[in-house]
Amino acid sequence: MNAIEELTESLSRLPGIGKKSASRIAYHLLASDRGECRRLGQELASLHDRICRCSVCGSYTETDPCPICTSPLRERGLLCVVEQPQDVRTIEDSREFRGLFHVLGGLISPLDGMGPEQLSIPSLMERIRAGEITEVIIATNPTVEGDTTALYIQRLLAESPVMVSRLASGLPVGGDLEYADRLTLARSFRGRVAL
Amino acid sequence: MNAIEELTESLSRLPGIGKKSASRIAYHLLASDRGECRRLGQELASLHDRICRCSVCGSYTETDPCPICTSPLRERGLLCVVEQPQDVRTIEDSREFRGLFHVLGGLISPLDGMGPEQLSIPSLMERIRAGEITEVIIATNPTVEGDTTALYIQRLLAESPVMVSRLASGLPVGGDLEYADRLTLARSFRGRVAL
Repeated sequence: MNAIEELTESLSRLPGIGKKSASRIAYHLLASDRGECRRLGQELASLHDRICRCSVCGSYTETDPCPICTSPLRERGLLCVVEQPQDVRTIEDSREFRGLFHVLGGLISPLDGMGPEQLSIPSLMERIRAGEITEVIIATNPTVEGDTTALYIQRLLAESPVMVSRLASGLPVGGDLEYADRLTLARSFRGRVAL
Repeated sequence: MNAIEELTESLSRLPGIGKKSASRIAYHLLASDRGECRRLGQELASLHDRICRCSVCGSYTETDPCPICTSPLRERGLLCVVEQPQDVRTIEDSREFRGLFHVLGGLISPLDGMGPEQLSIPSLMERIRAGEITEVIIATNPTVEGDTTALYIQRLLAESPVMVSRLASGLPVGGDLEYADRLTLARSFRGRVAL
């Protein structure tokens, strides 16, 4: 196996890249500038050395604690609980939330052997017990696992004085009723808002 | 811009990878094994050092001349002319051709400023003048540029004793008449085969 085949093989293991796309990318890189290709390679090779997990919130960062956890501009009373580190980026990109984050590192899913003990729920409770937080917004996916995890956290916090909320679920903005699935439609009925 | 954003930016410049897929790949790599990520990085960084163009046929190779040009098992009288190095791989994968290759490095396309002088046509003529080759199979794409280039080479070889052929064009095997475009259908009528 030569270097092109090796690279094609490695690229095709990436998510969303099949054998054809991998080969196309490999040949594109060969035809492109040597320096650019080397730079991409170095970015990849050093990725794990440059990025670590934030010891406070669990998101990916170059400095520990991460810039969000240490920022004086964030509302320290609001805590958004997400499943994975990339959810932090998605929410940050929406510019809708100015509080802090907590990454669970997964969702409760008994079928996959994921219980609450595998998630960073103890450190979540510790952060809440510290007293600064007044509202916890659970932003797990609107799936069975996301719902289960949200319910679990909500129950843990039942005795606590913090407010617990969950992201609204319903029809996507710009979407079409005709293409909405039954469950989404059902949830948007149940969560209907008075006008 | 941190390392993840840099990597996402670089990945999204690759063909067929948009911003969403690039971000998905970056987070996948972060969540995956450090060694695997480093290995992919090193494969990319060293790609141009390990791969060069074959001085005989122009395809990508780790050794010059390439394994196809030096193989004693190939039919040295058959020469397949292709546009780009990756076409060699595509044809090799089909296991349909056992001769030698010649990579043009592009197609004649006056609109893009590509004339015959930018292609490796002089070295093609030299290889043919050497006398071993008896048939030249032109395997350029069935496009305007591919047709023009094929016609140009055919005319250059009009006085030469070698046979010049072109890959058949028509309906793809397993395809459906209903979905064939007009030009493909027209060409498959013109190129119809007696049964």
